[in-house]
Amino acid sequence: MTDPFVVVGADAAGLSAASKFRREAPDRDVVVFEKGQWISYAYCGMPYFIEGRIERLSDLLSLSPSEVDERGIDLRRGHEVVAVDPDARTVTAETADGDTVTQAYTDLLVATGGRATTGPFDVRGPDGAFTLHSMDTAAAIDAYIASPEAYDPARADVDAVDRERVEYNAALPAPETAAIVGGGYVGVEMAEALSGRGLDVHLFQRSGHLLPPFGEAVGDRVEATIAENGVTVHTNTPVERLVGDGRIEAVAFGGEELPVDMAIVGVGIRPNTELLDGTDVELGDGGALSTDEYGRTSLPDVYAAGDCATATHAVTGTETWVPLGLTANRAGRAVGATVAGEPSPVGEIAGTAVVKAFEMEAGRAGLVEDEAAIDAGFDPVRETVTAGSRSGYYPGAAPTDVTLVADRDTGRLIGGSIAGPDRAAVRINTLATALEADMTVPGVERLDLAYAPPFSPVWDPILVAAKVLNGTLAE
Amino acid sequence: MTDPFVVVGADAAGLSAASKFRREAPDRDVVVFEKGQWISYAYCGMPYFIEGRIERLSDLLSLSPSEVDERGIDLRRGHEVVAVDPDARTVTAETADGDTVTQAYTDLLVATGGRATTGPFDVRGPDGAFTLHSMDTAAAIDAYIASPEAYDPARADVDAVDRERVEYNAALPAPETAAIVGGGYVGVEMAEALSGRGLDVHLFQRSGHLLPPFGEAVGDRVEATIAENGVTVHTNTPVERLVGDGRIEAVAFGGEELPVDMAIVGVGIRPNTELLDGTDVELGDGGALSTDEYGRTSLPDVYAAGDCATATHAVTGTETWVPLGLTANRAGRAVGATVAGEPSPVGEIAGTAVVKAFEMEAGRAGLVEDEAAIDAGFDPVRETVTAGSRSGYYPGAAPTDVTLVADRDTGRLIGGSIAGPDRAAVRINTLATALEADMTVPGVERLDLAYAPPFSPVWDPILVAAKVLNGTLAE
Repeated sequence: MTDPFVVVGADAAGLSAASKFRREAPDRDVVVFEKGQWISYAYCGMPYFIEGRIERLSDLLSLSPSEVDERGIDLRRGHEVVAVDPDARTVTAETADGDTVTQAYTDLLVATGGRATTGPFDVRGPDGAFTLHSMDTAAAIDAYIASPEAYDPARADVDAVDRERVEYNAALPAPETAAIVGGGYVGVEMAEALSGRGLDVHLFQRSGHLLPPFGEAVGDRVEATIAENGVTVHTNTPVERLVGDGRIEAVAFGGEELPVDMAIVGVGIRPNTELLDGTDVELGDGGALSTDEYGRTSLPDVYAAGDCATATHAVTGTETWVPLGLTANRAGRAVGATVAGEPSPVGEIAGTAVVKAFEMEAGRAGLVEDEAAIDAGFDPVRETVTAGSRSGYYPGAAPTDVTLVADRDTGRLIGGSIAGPDRAAVRINTLATALEADMTVPGVERLDLAYAPPFSPVWDPILVAAKVLNGTLAE
Repeated sequence: MTDPFVVVGADAAGLSAASKFRREAPDRDVVVFEKGQWISYAYCGMPYFIEGRIERLSDLLSLSPSEVDERGIDLRRGHEVVAVDPDARTVTAETADGDTVTQAYTDLLVATGGRATTGPFDVRGPDGAFTLHSMDTAAAIDAYIASPEAYDPARADVDAVDRERVEYNAALPAPETAAIVGGGYVGVEMAEALSGRGLDVHLFQRSGHLLPPFGEAVGDRVEATIAENGVTVHTNTPVERLVGDGRIEAVAFGGEELPVDMAIVGVGIRPNTELLDGTDVELGDGGALSTDEYGRTSLPDVYAAGDCATATHAVTGTETWVPLGLTANRAGRAVGATVAGEPSPVGEIAGTAVVKAFEMEAGRAGLVEDEAAIDAGFDPVRETVTAGSRSGYYPGAAPTDVTLVADRDTGRLIGGSIAGPDRAAVRINTLATALEADMTVPGVERLDLAYAPPFSPVWDPILVAAKVLNGTLAE
């Protein structure tokens, strides 16, 4: 009997791999170790749960342990893999009870994800200070926001939840003013969520604009929308520390203190790679596990996928660390197929991302910031246009900002962003596809994009941007 | 002094060409002949004017004659070009007063558009029978629908309008029941428009499903939506004739007569090429003027653009006649640049089209129908999936149907369609871009498309369809 395919981590990448593997190789075994109790949950849905748009924590789960079992996957929760021996082809796991298990593998997938970094902030200290990177935190934040008398325990309706933590937070008085530290995805989404729960929200961003990877045009537009919706945005304002012992009392910045009774720290995430610390595995961009086009690490028969792994960038062709949901699912699925005997590339990433901020929709793909473009050896030229989302005479037409970035010498499209309230987000897929196809900006200008008055003007905003950028490139 | 660039037709293609030409060659002259009084109007906006979503007919105009004049374009309305002498390089125009003008040209652009065909139906006969292909008809239909006491003459607020016809129709009693003959774009959009005006609407389609170029999956979905909104859809029902003398009384089909007091015939359009009848110009697909990648016809220095001209299809590489708004604008603009001395390809078409039917949005691109694919030498394989438009847990997620069509031997994507109520239409641009880039279905499956719960599930519906079709292709 051969050893099983072993997977570490039971979220998007890990369970996609295990499921695909079992479908393609039903006679072979797969063991999935998960250090905690949660599996297969939608990280990206947490802000919407906290906002109250989503009624139950269980709505964010896609697969239950019994469904995983039905797929013939040997799922072992409460097993933290603490060591890998690539020569012996074994992993060592510790259980919550302190037991140690050694498991041999034929192939190993490390799908350990990432974790929120907290910078200098002590979010484990005062009550009311949180990062958002687990279902337990989401449940705790939700409970903390509710007044003790109004909290509905049915919201956290999953056995795996840290019930004690939820109850503790539910019992605390409801906060009125929140500081969000960090104006990335989490910050922007949480600003909407906390605002939706009636809090007076302050959003702090260290640099000059929100959502840095989306570029300045989008950041400014999103900032304006958030401000219109009553959130106070503080750009160019690095928060220095959280103030308060028992409960958070304030955030401190530039010699000032703003009194708050809640703080969310969303300053970034980092890949979980400690598992391989004892090996000579190669690390890549962002300290993530370096992988090739099939998701292979530098260790024999050891794969990595998801937020702990790099991927090949469609524009630069180099390994890049962009931890996002589709990348994890897609890479996991491909690794599952490859290990089952059908070599499947994990696919390139274009760094495509979209975000909602109240009524504003924004998207980005490729190399949007000059620095990233220059680092990759391009000479970036950019234009931003504002064009209508529909024919001007059709009700609901809304200004849509499109930024396109090209390489000056070759005219190649290397990145772009979009912001607008009317169906702007999904339009970014056009740019993601053009980037994947290595199109030039003249090529983009000649795309036969859809026109009908309710959905687009004759010249789609992307075509308008391409026309303008081509004019600049021709100068 | 050199002769001018002469343009025939002052709508999308003609004025785009003249405007671009003047910008690029400000020292040279351009003369635009237009047989009627209307210029630069949005054909695609007419149904929404009739529906009442758009308040004034003038809202559908993009350029006024004085704005055209300001661009340095010599616009001559009321001049019908009746002959072209390609050897002498002259055109002959007749004015409404019966005068004849001969004009020499260096280069000539034929941008005469298309006109509604009426099949066997006499729409000039009874009152209440119309086709929709001019601003005058749009105004007349709008006036006819209103009751005489309720009609607001300010709706038709453009000097060029056929005031007599509007007043005549406004004075007729308001219709209650309408038949729409033809279930293409015009039929579907007019069903919504007339329904919105309170009429009892019957939509007749000769074949088995609406919107044939969108394929059966979309046609059926749109039919269901239209029916849910109270329109009676008669598929497989060729209307034989309009019944009535003074005023329309019924439509006749299959031995039956359905009493109506209004009928819209939308059975297709044909290219206006008669102008070149005396020459040996080559005609192509659909009887349109055959053009090359720069919009050149077979006659020296004679270009054609817009609804009267063919264009090169991105998938088949052959000349195809797909009369749509962007194609006209884009080709006109390119011809203007080329004639000004900057050779500019008119671009390929993917046959990208979108349509709104009440809350349903639909799109198509490439070769969707088997017949078209087989005619082009492909062996079509197709899959249709229904996937969510957002994460399942996020409010507003709606079933989105995606059909992808591939060539069996090569796996190349050759067409696709989308239908759904939640932002489905603009998603077709992803497929249009993939088609332009000659992507395979495995390539589409690996696209890095956007994911965020409010906008898309982890696997965009297009990726889901690609996964399924790849499974079929691998069988």
